[in-house]
Amino acid sequence: MNLRTTDFAFMEQAAQQDADDALGHYREQFNLPEGLIYLDGNSLGPLPKSVPPAMHRLLNDEWGDQLIGGWNQSDWIGLPERLGARIAHVLGAQPHEVIACDSISVNLIKLIALALQAAAPRTKVLMEEGQFPTDGYVAAGLARLMGETRMTLHTVPRSALSEALDDETAVIVLSHVHYVSSEKFDLKEWTSRAHDQGALVIWDLAHSAGVMPLELGSAGVDFATGCTYKFLCGGPGGPSFVYAADRLLNQFSQPLWGWMGHQDPFAFAHDYEPAEGARQFLTGTPSILAMTAAYASLALFLDLDLNAVQSKSRALTGRLIEGVAERGLDLKLATPRAPADRGSHVSFRHPSAYAIVQAMIEHGVIGDFRAPDILRFGIHPLVNGYQDIARCLTILQEVLEQAQYKAPRFSERQRVT
Amino acid sequence: MNLRTTDFAFMEQAAQQDADDALGHYREQFNLPEGLIYLDGNSLGPLPKSVPPAMHRLLNDEWGDQLIGGWNQSDWIGLPERLGARIAHVLGAQPHEVIACDSISVNLIKLIALALQAAAPRTKVLMEEGQFPTDGYVAAGLARLMGETRMTLHTVPRSALSEALDDETAVIVLSHVHYVSSEKFDLKEWTSRAHDQGALVIWDLAHSAGVMPLELGSAGVDFATGCTYKFLCGGPGGPSFVYAADRLLNQFSQPLWGWMGHQDPFAFAHDYEPAEGARQFLTGTPSILAMTAAYASLALFLDLDLNAVQSKSRALTGRLIEGVAERGLDLKLATPRAPADRGSHVSFRHPSAYAIVQAMIEHGVIGDFRAPDILRFGIHPLVNGYQDIARCLTILQEVLEQAQYKAPRFSERQRVT
Repeated sequence: MNLRTTDFAFMEQAAQQDADDALGHYREQFNLPEGLIYLDGNSLGPLPKSVPPAMHRLLNDEWGDQLIGGWNQSDWIGLPERLGARIAHVLGAQPHEVIACDSISVNLIKLIALALQAAAPRTKVLMEEGQFPTDGYVAAGLARLMGETRMTLHTVPRSALSEALDDETAVIVLSHVHYVSSEKFDLKEWTSRAHDQGALVIWDLAHSAGVMPLELGSAGVDFATGCTYKFLCGGPGGPSFVYAADRLLNQFSQPLWGWMGHQDPFAFAHDYEPAEGARQFLTGTPSILAMTAAYASLALFLDLDLNAVQSKSRALTGRLIEGVAERGLDLKLATPRAPADRGSHVSFRHPSAYAIVQAMIEHGVIGDFRAPDILRFGIHPLVNGYQDIARCLTILQEVLEQAQYKAPRFSERQRVT
Repeated sequence: MNLRTTDFAFMEQAAQQDADDALGHYREQFNLPEGLIYLDGNSLGPLPKSVPPAMHRLLNDEWGDQLIGGWNQSDWIGLPERLGARIAHVLGAQPHEVIACDSISVNLIKLIALALQAAAPRTKVLMEEGQFPTDGYVAAGLARLMGETRMTLHTVPRSALSEALDDETAVIVLSHVHYVSSEKFDLKEWTSRAHDQGALVIWDLAHSAGVMPLELGSAGVDFATGCTYKFLCGGPGGPSFVYAADRLLNQFSQPLWGWMGHQDPFAFAHDYEPAEGARQFLTGTPSILAMTAAYASLALFLDLDLNAVQSKSRALTGRLIEGVAERGLDLKLATPRAPADRGSHVSFRHPSAYAIVQAMIEHGVIGDFRAPDILRFGIHPLVNGYQDIARCLTILQEVLEQAQYKAPRFSERQRVT
């Protein structure tokens, strides 16, 4: 890699900014391969160094030695709530309003069905066209299951959401930060808009939890879900979470009734009686392995000022956007320019996006590709620094200007997660 | 502990039988605390020694070093199917008919809803009263969600099942081995009975997978589910699995539509199109940590003769039943005496069952209690031997005859999982 003079100055400035960064010490808490520039923490957060010892303890001291006794002695039974309480801190919610369980997909089913009860007799579920597809899939599957007299699904483009959010809407399901464009809804404003129409709101926080203050409580949010495997660094396929506002917790019951959501699972009673509080969102037996990893990771977030995290996210995403413009790179920005309107990833369009992402990976810069023509760079403020962005820009410029991505080995599209 | 003369002879005989046991070497594959007699593998299987190194590799080499690339490089994306194929071996199914995902509770919802499609216009779902409660809870929750015109739930005692299984029944959901009594249904016979009525069958194999040959394929079973955390030793809250017969796999679609069950998840298509084969049973992103542990554990079952496992299970459960009778212990057998009619755990009734279980634990014998008056001993043929049963009997006799369980410290009932 040949660095130009301007690049040297740029790198030096970035090094100084990293040295001055009040959040810079967090990077030491993660296991990252030497020299790698990882800009995909929005897909899979890197491994916190605290996770392997926590897993070692779970395997050897708990499962290995306590065996079945681990449910009580190591409070596995309370782990979904303990993990929920740590996540609540990130969400700006009360500890008892959040619980960890299942996947976002399964949790969305619970929340939509529950919201339909709470908003009865309204049956209209409103979603945005083009949000993360699983949200639409689960809603469509649920609508088929419930039948059209009990649930009607309306999917409209973002520009038509305001008009479609009417006094027949039971619930609106929104992705807080769009998985491709990074475009962010104003969470408080859209929550109020829904309430003004007598509708409830469910937020999918997959791409925002952990990188900005959320303040679900003060925003009056009804329901939310998200996952721990992205910015929260809980590990591949890590547990999802459910948030339900205190006022809605004990009035209605989600429909996926399993024994762990029963008010007394070990009574083995014939009839289902939902547990009080967020515990009613449990269905089957939770994975203690998955929860233990996420619990260890979430410890990183306990003392964190999420306003500072957001500031750094805005600075780094801004630097990437400006850098591409300053260098005149042939990429079309697909993310809002205004810092307040975006999350912590930046997307660009290019007809050869796939090949460019592959060529970047060969240089040790990990971003990702989203069909058909998106290059996406996720920035994790606890992991990434100014030098990462500077190096990413340098390599991006090299790959584009030298047309490295046109090499035949990059042309064949393989599955990219 | 004072051993009587007859006990010495009994122990000597047991030691010889363990030495002669063709499955005896499997015990070395597990981590078990020195001196502990673990008779709760039916609740939580012990830790296979292969699991910690597999988790170490996953954490450090895959998540840590490959990061997002692990989905392809370590084939995390294929792990639910690879684990499913290993489980298929235990179930007597074809590898592509089984997939690992979610919990039994969530999977039962998928299977019941799918069976209702396949059996349309029938709406009747038949279950046994008193089977593991979560099975009834999820069915009741689903019935409420679907509405009574689309699903009607009939729960009857075992003695009334035959009569209730009629030509209006869409599907019968049965626990193969009862979680308390250990009573076993004849899987092949009840599958045929259902088919004779034009009904489908879903088997819950939680208490039978891994300890007996199942032969789902040759028995013509339609659907099944179960978990990996009991006899399959996949770890606390380990993944569940779904089996669907080849002939039913691609005709109907389960209703919990998530992106991982889509035929092309990374196309991010707007409309849901179920994947071919068992992959359609996936909903959200699976926990790779949970699946990796179970995958390592299932390797133990690949070369196993499940007929030999069943023979040992019958011998050990029989020895426990006979031993209690021979010693005239004041316990009422709650499990079928005929070996072919029971699974791999044995239950007894006693008014002070809870205190007796606690007193046994103090002597290093781990069984469990089920309300209101059941002592349950699970026997894992890969883990337990004849000496375990002999010691269990000796200690049981001591606890009962010396009335140790009447000590005040055993009287207060705490949560027992």
